[in-house]
Amino acid sequence: MGRAGIGDSVEGFHAVSAALAAGRVVTLNVEHRRLNRPEYTRLADDARRAGAHVAFVDDVRDGAKTSAPQGVVAECRAKETVTLEAVVAASDPAAVLVFDHLEDQRNLGAAVRSAVAAGFRAVVVPSRRSAPIGAAAFKAAVGALEVVSIAEVSSIPEALRRLEALGVWRVGLDGSGERSLFGFELLTEPVAIVVGAEGAGLHRLTAERCDAIVRIPHDDAVESLNASVATSLAVFEVARARGWVS
Amino acid sequence: MGRAGIGDSVEGFHAVSAALAAGRVVTLNVEHRRLNRPEYTRLADDARRAGAHVAFVDDVRDGAKTSAPQGVVAECRAKETVTLEAVVAASDPAAVLVFDHLEDQRNLGAAVRSAVAAGFRAVVVPSRRSAPIGAAAFKAAVGALEVVSIAEVSSIPEALRRLEALGVWRVGLDGSGERSLFGFELLTEPVAIVVGAEGAGLHRLTAERCDAIVRIPHDDAVESLNASVATSLAVFEVARARGWVS
Repeated sequence: MGRAGIGDSVEGFHAVSAALAAGRVVTLNVEHRRLNRPEYTRLADDARRAGAHVAFVDDVRDGAKTSAPQGVVAECRAKETVTLEAVVAASDPAAVLVFDHLEDQRNLGAAVRSAVAAGFRAVVVPSRRSAPIGAAAFKAAVGALEVVSIAEVSSIPEALRRLEALGVWRVGLDGSGERSLFGFELLTEPVAIVVGAEGAGLHRLTAERCDAIVRIPHDDAVESLNASVATSLAVFEVARARGWVS
Repeated sequence: MGRAGIGDSVEGFHAVSAALAAGRVVTLNVEHRRLNRPEYTRLADDARRAGAHVAFVDDVRDGAKTSAPQGVVAECRAKETVTLEAVVAASDPAAVLVFDHLEDQRNLGAAVRSAVAAGFRAVVVPSRRSAPIGAAAFKAAVGALEVVSIAEVSSIPEALRRLEALGVWRVGLDGSGERSLFGFELLTEPVAIVVGAEGAGLHRLTAERCDAIVRIPHDDAVESLNASVATSLAVFEVARARGWVS
């Protein structure tokens, strides 16, 4: 069931509201001075009704992990992880977002927000050599991390091998790709979009396990795209190819 | 000529390199300990050759405006602004990005990075009731703000009226739009993409001056898209409609 820790602390109004709706909030810390706003009073009421402990504090920023927690910090039961089989079954045809790196939590959260907006419901992340998905990612995801199924794997290349066995095409996103993402014909098939770190791109072993590496064509005046922007363009290309959005 | 201040302080290795290439750096502050990396030595040499004052310091973070200045802070001549006519002439057909708000400097910088990647070379920003485009925007733009022409205007609705007179179609981006961005037929014409603030969307007077309001269709599981992601999808849709990228 994966390691404890994914989303065990959530900050920011929308992210905390989503964690509460997901039944994960154990303790809600909310600033006194916010209670003149009805949405904060409602959040505290909802938390109490859900059986959470509600603590009113002067300032949540001291213990906060993000720079703008918006007056609310929730201590949560960690989000449960699922198997690769469950990740593949989360949508039909399969649409899985695989993170080869986890360095920038804000980019990860923003990428998951876009992926859910595009109809994705499944994410694969590495468990080794990286912090669990934390408060900054949940805040940037604005609730989207609550609605995706997450599989944590010890090796991304090994997970890609298993995804192949489950009938999923593995499409790496990298500036070095020879094919363009736009109009790429595999996207209507069960697919995993594999994204690397900004700058560094995909690990060699990860790239070798992909069926294709695609790039997002762009003007030479910039060296590269922001990682969450590149991921957003990719997941929306999947959604458009399938008619999920139009 | 616009107000002094756009980009008068630039931080982060790539953003500072781009400001130097644009001939704007007056003083380069660089940390001693970075000089064991050849790219930093080269940056300091290039700055000296360009006539800038180079100061070696222990830590640039004290006076820095961003959280990760990467060992370099440059004091610069402000970037010059241009007329709306120049903005329209910056590409053929015209492709202008208009910001109705300037609240989030990181989103603005990220949006301009994507716009330049899509082939845009022109931006319109409001001068009233907002800080000039600052260090956080330049850092997030990773050099892209150096290559765009920027017009500062006292009123966005008035600027949209003048853009109409210059033969430019004004397309507002807002979640409330009735038309989908995808496949929208006006994008091959001279066009200004008008973007609002995350959450708040476009001001009413701004929306009224647009020829069309388009939305990015997305799954209901998220309330909205990140503002820089929405802008990125829009500018790439323009680029694809025109065959600028493929």
